[in-house]
Amino acid sequence: MTTSSSASSDEVHQPVPAAKDPWELPDVSGLVVGVLGGTGPQGKGLAYRLAKAGQQVIIGSRAADRARAVADELGLGIQGADNPEAARRSDIVIVAVPWDGHAKTLESLRDDLAGKLVIDCVNPLGFDKKGAYALTPEEGSAAEQAAVLLPGSRVTAAFHHLSAVTLMDQDVEEINTDVLVLGEVRTDTDVVQALADRIPGMRGVFGGRLRNAHQVESLVANLISVNRRYKAHAGLRVTDIQRPRT
Amino acid sequence: MTTSSSASSDEVHQPVPAAKDPWELPDVSGLVVGVLGGTGPQGKGLAYRLAKAGQQVIIGSRAADRARAVADELGLGIQGADNPEAARRSDIVIVAVPWDGHAKTLESLRDDLAGKLVIDCVNPLGFDKKGAYALTPEEGSAAEQAAVLLPGSRVTAAFHHLSAVTLMDQDVEEINTDVLVLGEVRTDTDVVQALADRIPGMRGVFGGRLRNAHQVESLVANLISVNRRYKAHAGLRVTDIQRPRT
Repeated sequence: MTTSSSASSDEVHQPVPAAKDPWELPDVSGLVVGVLGGTGPQGKGLAYRLAKAGQQVIIGSRAADRARAVADELGLGIQGADNPEAARRSDIVIVAVPWDGHAKTLESLRDDLAGKLVIDCVNPLGFDKKGAYALTPEEGSAAEQAAVLLPGSRVTAAFHHLSAVTLMDQDVEEINTDVLVLGEVRTDTDVVQALADRIPGMRGVFGGRLRNAHQVESLVANLISVNRRYKAHAGLRVTDIQRPRT
Repeated sequence: MTTSSSASSDEVHQPVPAAKDPWELPDVSGLVVGVLGGTGPQGKGLAYRLAKAGQQVIIGSRAADRARAVADELGLGIQGADNPEAARRSDIVIVAVPWDGHAKTLESLRDDLAGKLVIDCVNPLGFDKKGAYALTPEEGSAAEQAAVLLPGSRVTAAFHHLSAVTLMDQDVEEINTDVLVLGEVRTDTDVVQALADRIPGMRGVFGGRLRNAHQVESLVANLISVNRRYKAHAGLRVTDIQRPRT
């Protein structure tokens, strides 16, 4: 932003606020979380972990009865609904649909998602005989596509690097990984970081603006290579940052 | 690769070899490592750490006297030379030049780099008032550009996510980060992983083919956002993989 000579005095003379503690995040325990595509492996795993952490979760799917069947299977008070109803009844909506249906699904839910905090966790990848590779959406990334298609929503990006197998593994108590959270507005990314923090072992870490979402989404292709080479379910930790003990 | 009906019998009947241990890497302690752009912060830091680990290092620069001055400053047996000589005298050549001069520098060194194992660690980034953002080279990534420009070299990509400040901090004994290593040929990526393993605290981790280098290079934009928010020198650890204790 450039400051023109017609800038109002409060813009010009406002003191620089003290840097806010990046670990000081809001209480999100009372917010309802919808998971669109919650019957797929990634969405289902996230729904399970968030509900297990005490969050009210509504799984969304194209077919309400399929969503309800998965919700009943998972238990933990999880509810099921069709995608529009799941969106409308939630405060935060995680988009975990396949990349193929991403644009079409979001377009059809524009009104239902208006005013909501949207978390896109979709990884646009292609696969061939050599493995996985990054696809580049016209808008730059899945998250930026969501931002274009949902002008009335607050769009963020997060939860890209999680192993669905690990999320659903009932013997795993802690998810040993960080979640990079991207977005344009700090109050929104703070909420998403706080949501990630609800899951034991997980940390929500601010990772930049949406224009830098593509590489975060695409890095899943590299994690697939890691998993194949090391027979692992790899995640990522950011080093040199440490949450103060409370 | 498709198997046609004319495939030779050894292709068809060859037993599947046992998976090689991903942690079993060659001894690289006797290899000479050149660092092109070794007078810049990233190259200088890498030269320092590798030499400190016992590797013979030659710093390359456009001006030989500048390379020699930095080599003398660092000590540890590090030598300095102009870029062509540093390339010719080394077994492994790390490319740590600024992105702006990347293509031109490599083109001019094509013959000097023939037959060498090249490690590209360049991150093509742009900067504006909103911070850093990824640039997309025409070839897909800096590493793929290197592969195109150096048909006689074995090109890999690694050492992208290191903090130059941490590398040069003499109070830091261990570099607490993993190094994602990308390349097309396993014997090459194994050597680069082994080189990263030489630095205490660091692990070389296979991270896929060169076509997936762009997101690894670009992720530095996100780490810059992390560093700014958390006042850190962030790196990355890959979770769920563990080197066996020897």
